[in-house]
Amino acid sequence: MERRNSREEREINEFDDGGDTKKIGGGERKMIMLEIERVFKDTEVPPWTKQITIRSMVTSFILSIVFNFIVCKLNLTTGVIPSLNVAAGLLGFAVLKGYTALLDRCGMLKQPFTRQENTVIQTCVVASSGIAFSSGTASYLLGMSPMIAAQGDGASTPINVKPLSLGWMIGFLLVVSFVGLFSIVPLRKMMILKYKLTYPSGTATAYLINSFHTPRGAKLAKKQVSVLFQSFCFSFVFAFFQWFYTAGDDCGFSNFPTFGLQAYQQRFYFDFSSTYVGVGMICPYMVNISLLIGAVLSWGIMWPLIEHKKGDWYSAQLSPSSLHGIQGYRVFIAIAMMLGDGLFHVVYMLIKTASSLVTHKSVVEDHPSDSEIENYDEKRRTELFLTDQIPVWVAFLGYGILAVISIISVPFIFHQLKWYHILVAYAIAPILAFCNAYGCGLTDWSLASNYGKVAIIIFSSWVGLENGGVIAGLASCGVMMSIVSTASDLMQDFKTGYLTLASPRSMFFSQVFGTAMGCLMSPLVFWFFYKAYSVGDPNGSYPAPYGLLYRGIALLGVEGIDSLPKNCVKLAITFFCIAIALNILSELLRCYETKYRMYRFVPSAMCMAIPFYLGGYFAIDMCVGSLILFLWQMKNKPKAHDFAPAVASGLICGDSLWGIPAAILSLAGIKAPICMQFLSASQIQG
Amino acid sequence: MERRNSREEREINEFDDGGDTKKIGGGERKMIMLEIERVFKDTEVPPWTKQITIRSMVTSFILSIVFNFIVCKLNLTTGVIPSLNVAAGLLGFAVLKGYTALLDRCGMLKQPFTRQENTVIQTCVVASSGIAFSSGTASYLLGMSPMIAAQGDGASTPINVKPLSLGWMIGFLLVVSFVGLFSIVPLRKMMILKYKLTYPSGTATAYLINSFHTPRGAKLAKKQVSVLFQSFCFSFVFAFFQWFYTAGDDCGFSNFPTFGLQAYQQRFYFDFSSTYVGVGMICPYMVNISLLIGAVLSWGIMWPLIEHKKGDWYSAQLSPSSLHGIQGYRVFIAIAMMLGDGLFHVVYMLIKTASSLVTHKSVVEDHPSDSEIENYDEKRRTELFLTDQIPVWVAFLGYGILAVISIISVPFIFHQLKWYHILVAYAIAPILAFCNAYGCGLTDWSLASNYGKVAIIIFSSWVGLENGGVIAGLASCGVMMSIVSTASDLMQDFKTGYLTLASPRSMFFSQVFGTAMGCLMSPLVFWFFYKAYSVGDPNGSYPAPYGLLYRGIALLGVEGIDSLPKNCVKLAITFFCIAIALNILSELLRCYETKYRMYRFVPSAMCMAIPFYLGGYFAIDMCVGSLILFLWQMKNKPKAHDFAPAVASGLICGDSLWGIPAAILSLAGIKAPICMQFLSASQIQG
Repeated sequence: MERRNSREEREINEFDDGGDTKKIGGGERKMIMLEIERVFKDTEVPPWTKQITIRSMVTSFILSIVFNFIVCKLNLTTGVIPSLNVAAGLLGFAVLKGYTALLDRCGMLKQPFTRQENTVIQTCVVASSGIAFSSGTASYLLGMSPMIAAQGDGASTPINVKPLSLGWMIGFLLVVSFVGLFSIVPLRKMMILKYKLTYPSGTATAYLINSFHTPRGAKLAKKQVSVLFQSFCFSFVFAFFQWFYTAGDDCGFSNFPTFGLQAYQQRFYFDFSSTYVGVGMICPYMVNISLLIGAVLSWGIMWPLIEHKKGDWYSAQLSPSSLHGIQGYRVFIAIAMMLGDGLFHVVYMLIKTASSLVTHKSVVEDHPSDSEIENYDEKRRTELFLTDQIPVWVAFLGYGILAVISIISVPFIFHQLKWYHILVAYAIAPILAFCNAYGCGLTDWSLASNYGKVAIIIFSSWVGLENGGVIAGLASCGVMMSIVSTASDLMQDFKTGYLTLASPRSMFFSQVFGTAMGCLMSPLVFWFFYKAYSVGDPNGSYPAPYGLLYRGIALLGVEGIDSLPKNCVKLAITFFCIAIALNILSELLRCYETKYRMYRFVPSAMCMAIPFYLGGYFAIDMCVGSLILFLWQMKNKPKAHDFAPAVASGLICGDSLWGIPAAILSLAGIKAPICMQFLSASQIQG
Repeated sequence: MERRNSREEREINEFDDGGDTKKIGGGERKMIMLEIERVFKDTEVPPWTKQITIRSMVTSFILSIVFNFIVCKLNLTTGVIPSLNVAAGLLGFAVLKGYTALLDRCGMLKQPFTRQENTVIQTCVVASSGIAFSSGTASYLLGMSPMIAAQGDGASTPINVKPLSLGWMIGFLLVVSFVGLFSIVPLRKMMILKYKLTYPSGTATAYLINSFHTPRGAKLAKKQVSVLFQSFCFSFVFAFFQWFYTAGDDCGFSNFPTFGLQAYQQRFYFDFSSTYVGVGMICPYMVNISLLIGAVLSWGIMWPLIEHKKGDWYSAQLSPSSLHGIQGYRVFIAIAMMLGDGLFHVVYMLIKTASSLVTHKSVVEDHPSDSEIENYDEKRRTELFLTDQIPVWVAFLGYGILAVISIISVPFIFHQLKWYHILVAYAIAPILAFCNAYGCGLTDWSLASNYGKVAIIIFSSWVGLENGGVIAGLASCGVMMSIVSTASDLMQDFKTGYLTLASPRSMFFSQVFGTAMGCLMSPLVFWFFYKAYSVGDPNGSYPAPYGLLYRGIALLGVEGIDSLPKNCVKLAITFFCIAIALNILSELLRCYETKYRMYRFVPSAMCMAIPFYLGGYFAIDMCVGSLILFLWQMKNKPKAHDFAPAVASGLICGDSLWGIPAAILSLAGIKAPICMQFLSASQIQG
């Protein structure tokens, strides 16, 4: 089962108002961080070459090892991986601050520790631990192994099985992982400057880093830091407290049937996740409401109705997680809706870009951005964000060269894949990367694994069972996922960089370094576990559930789209169209109805689609966040305005940081002492 | 097991600052209700004869039936009975307000609905439902029945068994129940005017009633009402929410092992009771800290140490609830400490009274009260409290006459009791009544059942097994409990009356009326259950656990004090002395150490004793309340001062009021749908 905090399904990115700034227009922007750059006015921003220091790279290396271990272990046990952006930022600060403070005492400090350096470390660690996830050592790569193949039904023919080996795994990762870096470079300005997407985790991290480095004397900033610290502590302690009650599966606060057991079955419950309450406080109201609408529509109405057709539309003997059954509807309808929304934006963007090119203006400069830069912060950030440019031709060239290398070399590793398969993958990947980065910026969810699953289906069915479609599908999943996942992860880092005045160039090189480390570390760490334990044994300590799941999807793929449950394709097409229709409606309203500005109330299709698959629990968390913000604004608007982002960031950071001790406890095999369980009255009497 | 909210063990009375006003002196009083009487300045207080109206008596009658049913049912199922003061006040208001509003619309309203009338209803209902508890239909009376006798070990001889019958039960109650009313009249002024005891439930009720009747226009009062209403709603909704998770025994928030399972075993946990958090907010810090000290001393240190002596000090085969075992230490040490504290105050009071009589000044007028009446509210309240006096000679005469009637008639009902037994009971009862009313005013706990248990022990052992000591003990428990319980219950009502300007005389008559109703209703309602179901069958739906428990105490009594566990008497005497020593220390510090006023930091023995028996959970709730108040005061002292009592009252009221729908649900046999359970990790794996 997919669960909350799954890196699989999301990356906590950040939202500020920007989430629908594009829709709202320049008029009523609310600043998330009010004039924070004025506080930093006298702090020099070092050139990008000085942002990447040896000490920061060493710190990144150490933290990367730690994070790779954590991610790998979690991958192999439950597959639930928390977002580590914040933790990376915080730990990076702690290590380097300690080091520089020590040097300073000895009078040996030459270069002060800057927030840009902090961001660079954070970015590097995120890039390297991101590989630990997108390398699929616990999902698609593991799914190729003979042990997992033996567990799946059928298709265990030699051509559909590939024994794991350290050599080809590292080679494969090195070949495919860097492509993604170049795919996002051209998108960077679009996402952050033009669409002003929020990327909640990135914003929260930036907020945290800024707070750490705030020069003394700024009163509001000081107060904000104190509020941030309080909410951080609360959130951390609360997460710690929650841990005590999670002795077994389905134990603890994250399984609290707040609205009753039946609602819980339909994934409507408040799961006491401070992270999502914080995210909800940062997100615009309409995003949260869209999520809730999506949850009600899907888990409240559609899935129960479809489940009534069980035995008619799909076989009643299927497990609930089978893609041939109800899960198929969830996954494919959600993907269709996201693709519809993503596609609209791609097309819309292309038209806009084309038209602006025709009128000889660049996209960035043409746009209302000039008039929107109404305050000091934004002006300064934009200025620095645009200084150390990475030229677009470099990005295209880099992408092209790496893609060609990949197209040539991957068929040597997986002879089931031909060069044209990979060429197609690289042709469509940027579009999906755009969709994912955009959706992630809007909603804080990275759906990389979903796009990966789509790739499995497409390529498995294309190659076919007898030509090794299973392996082909899983390998192409790797190709696709590394691009799509990188797009959202690193775009968040760019957002952090934007908000901390880190140079895009130093960020880029830090990402390159991090990716390189990840490509080496991730398979090595995995190999350690793989050799030491019987990874993939469902009854062992390292069941690695996603191994079989991904192979299952590939099996579905080789059997073709007809094996999808009845009406699933029809419904998926319908929702694909609904997504496009919603966007068109919103644009039409924006153009022709200016009195009530009704377009503000058109729900976002991207947001609606996410709970289709996951359920409503995180939407409820986020709505709780909205509610808190709303009540706070009712009571004291200026105060809410000044401190809500600090509280929200604290909530997100504290909860996320608990992930580290929790993982250490888990690594040490220490179980929580208590299980908080929820049983129905009938279970009690029985 | 005794549990929180047990009327058995406590009556939620009210605390304001007054709790240790006597100790602090007049200097640093904080007013709980700031100048509320100014708001009511233009509202006429009707004469006492107009406070008791036909409509109020009819309302009381109807509500009494409802409450008697609820209490009886709860008595027979778990023995856990919530405090109903607040609910009575609120429902009385709702019924009469609806009625008068209706009449007003028709233009037929002659006399407006006043808060005094509201208080009278509340008092009457509390008096009548108080009888439902102190009548012991589920405890001492039931313990006499042959069915319960058959379950106890030994002493089922005819002389130690008395079959229940409606006739003698009503007769017995009528004879013993009114005595208590007269015993408290002389104490009234001492407790409320002189000691300024808080009686938290009573104060909360008064606060509520005052809010309902606040004339429009008073801004602060209006705001307070709004805050009260908010916290009331929160508390009610939270209690409602909690209910859903209580499908089985040991389910739900009230069994939340907040500090781990081992602490929970030692009754250290936060049980999410908004009532006690509210009570803690009203109580002075030192009361809450004393409770916590007591809890740590007893459940944290002493009981575990004594339990190590299991098999040496007492037989290891005993059940944990046996008075021959660990439970014996808890009960008797707690009682000894309370008696020590109570006795000190009685003696101290007598000396003071005597000395003031010698100097020809009345106790009330001599005291700092004159100088203390520094504000309008207190002046006006005291004035009205002293207008409709009930002369002390009337009280003494009434007590004497009723005692004589009782002494003559009770031996006819229980031939095991002789006239001199009852005479002794009536001689010591007022002292115990004083102790209980005083302790209840201080801590919000009525310990009537504990005093009743002491009476069982004393009289059972006096009369002896062969002379029917069991029945004698149980019957004398009734005699004692009705006085002691009445003393605390009705003193709270007097506090409510004091704060709502109700005349003591109208209160008294309302109490008489309520008591009369209770004496008739309570046995009738019990009889309904007794005939309809097999009451007392441990496996039936009405196990009435206290029946056997009380009989068990009587059995202990007839076997004599030697049958108590080893060292129990020694320890009890030690703690009796400690209690007296603490009081002497406090008085000495008050006289001779005025610089730091260290006496403020001497814990109260009465407060320390309560958790000896019950455990620390409610002390923790109350400390949470203190903590909230402390933080609030740190942040915004004037605001905390104005609104903390409203918040606290709201918390108490909302939680208590949920008792009514909960009881109705219980009566209707509707069980909560979910059980929130806490299992240790080992239980999960096993």
